Amino acid sequence: VTVDTMVQGVHWDSRLAPADVGFKAVAASVSDLAACGARPRWMLLSLSLPRRPEPDAWVAKLRVGLSEACAAFGVHLVGGDVTAVPHGAPRVVSTTLEGRCVAAPLTRSGARAGDLLWVTGTCGLAGAGWMDPAPAPAALDALRRPVPPLPFALALAASGHATAAMDLSDGLATDLPRLARASGVAIEVDPARLPAHPTIAGHPQRRRYQLAGGEDYQLLFTAPSAKRAAIEELAASLDTQVTAVGSVREGSGATATDGAWPRPFAHFAPPKVAP
Amino acid sequence: VTVDTMVQGVHWDSRLAPADVGFKAVAASVSDLAACGARPRWMLLSLSLPRRPEPDAWVAKLRVGLSEACAAFGVHLVGGDVTAVPHGAPRVVSTTLEGRCVAAPLTRSGARAGDLLWVTGTCGLAGAGWMDPAPAPAALDALRRPVPPLPFALALAASGHATAAMDLSDGLATDLPRLARASGVAIEVDPARLPAHPTIAGHPQRRRYQLAGGEDYQLLFTAPSAKRAAIEELAASLDTQVTAVGSVREGSGATATDGAWPRPFAHFAPPKVAP
Repeated sequence: VTVDTMVQGVHWDSRLAPADVGFKAVAASVSDLAACGARPRWMLLSLSLPRRPEPDAWVAKLRVGLSEACAAFGVHLVGGDVTAVPHGAPRVVSTTLEGRCVAAPLTRSGARAGDLLWVTGTCGLAGAGWMDPAPAPAALDALRRPVPPLPFALALAASGHATAAMDLSDGLATDLPRLARASGVAIEVDPARLPAHPTIAGHPQRRRYQLAGGEDYQLLFTAPSAKRAAIEELAASLDTQVTAVGSVREGSGATATDGAWPRPFAHFAPPKVAP
Repeated sequence: VTVDTMVQGVHWDSRLAPADVGFKAVAASVSDLAACGARPRWMLLSLSLPRRPEPDAWVAKLRVGLSEACAAFGVHLVGGDVTAVPHGAPRVVSTTLEGRCVAAPLTRSGARAGDLLWVTGTCGLAGAGWMDPAPAPAALDALRRPVPPLPFALALAASGHATAAMDLSDGLATDLPRLARASGVAIEVDPARLPAHPTIAGHPQRRRYQLAGGEDYQLLFTAPSAKRAAIEELAASLDTQVTAVGSVREGSGATATDGAWPRPFAHFAPPKVAP
């Protein structure tokens, strides 16, 4: 079971239509469950909205994307809560999703020296949608409508091949150190191997989008290197792109083969203010 | 499973210390589960907090009351989410609680003509804490630290005596019409019978506190009049005050024996502005 909260002005802005907010709220929580190898079942929705402008029209639009995502991922909305916030306060959308593990749960703590690090899909495209002042349509789409690799995640959990998994939601720079810490290992990524969508493949900011950008909602996982062929076959059977992007060693922390690791994102880090 | 969201400035203000907010967030959700005849088991907590003032001290205080309530009601905090909100935005505390029904779930829809309407404890004291410009200490305590009658609610569910139940969280004026509507019946309350704490028993605003005031987190339930003695015995065995305050008839809506029903509270009602 997982809860995710999205705050207007923090997690979304005018680049997301209300329907995108609805879709993304569900998709982000589905991503959390997928990373555990859990098939989503039901959802509670908590909305905190200002009285003005009158919230009905906004909620009707939110609902369109919410319903699309619920249909896409097999989620049933079973209840929730609606609350007013004071005038001028941001809208808050909070989703609680429950799922059932299809096999032993995938966790962050099982990565072992000798494992390979894998990522599904591509990374950095949603980051470009968020960070690029004039993002390409494909980057905006990725930001607005993330599609976590649920079928592959469930199949991977059932296969028993993976030693650890998590979803890539805050960006590699933030998420990979978490995986390394939880498993008590060192993980080294080769940034040149990080799969990129054609839109950002040749972009001068590619590295930044791929490491510091979040919102990809892809699956990051580790597995013994002997499982390489089995994983590639499983992914191919589900039409899911997978790429081995690094390796697990004894030690601690996340590193890049070509240099220092960027600073992780922190919700409560001291804000960067001009001196 | 239930989700409840509390917004600073809407659901609490400076009358509640952070520890009170923590206690109340849990208690309000426990009240929801109790009204279904469900014993709480686990909780997810979602916090949305501004970066400044730095949130650690506030969270440490919140945690004290949260832990007290979790211990009091047998709840295990198993996960959650922490998010930053923009500068100046209110704090938002959202709790998702799961419980297991001890018998067939109590619902709002089973009240039948001939039933009596019952309420546990007293009502209006928390309303006085919220509405009175200079509330008595007991009224503030009731506002800050509500204690839903969990043991009685579970025993009532197990007994099979009740036909319908809900928790009294938004005040009788709001909650009773919901019960009547869900059951397709008319419910008439005798305001003179509404049990009052000594602090407000002789207060000129007693009726207003008891009908329009919310936050009591007591149990409102119906049962056939033939069950009267059994219910009183059950309540006495658990040291819980219960009072028969009205009756169920065929028809629709909630009424008071002595006059018109006050206007329900609505989160999204048009605000009352001076012309």
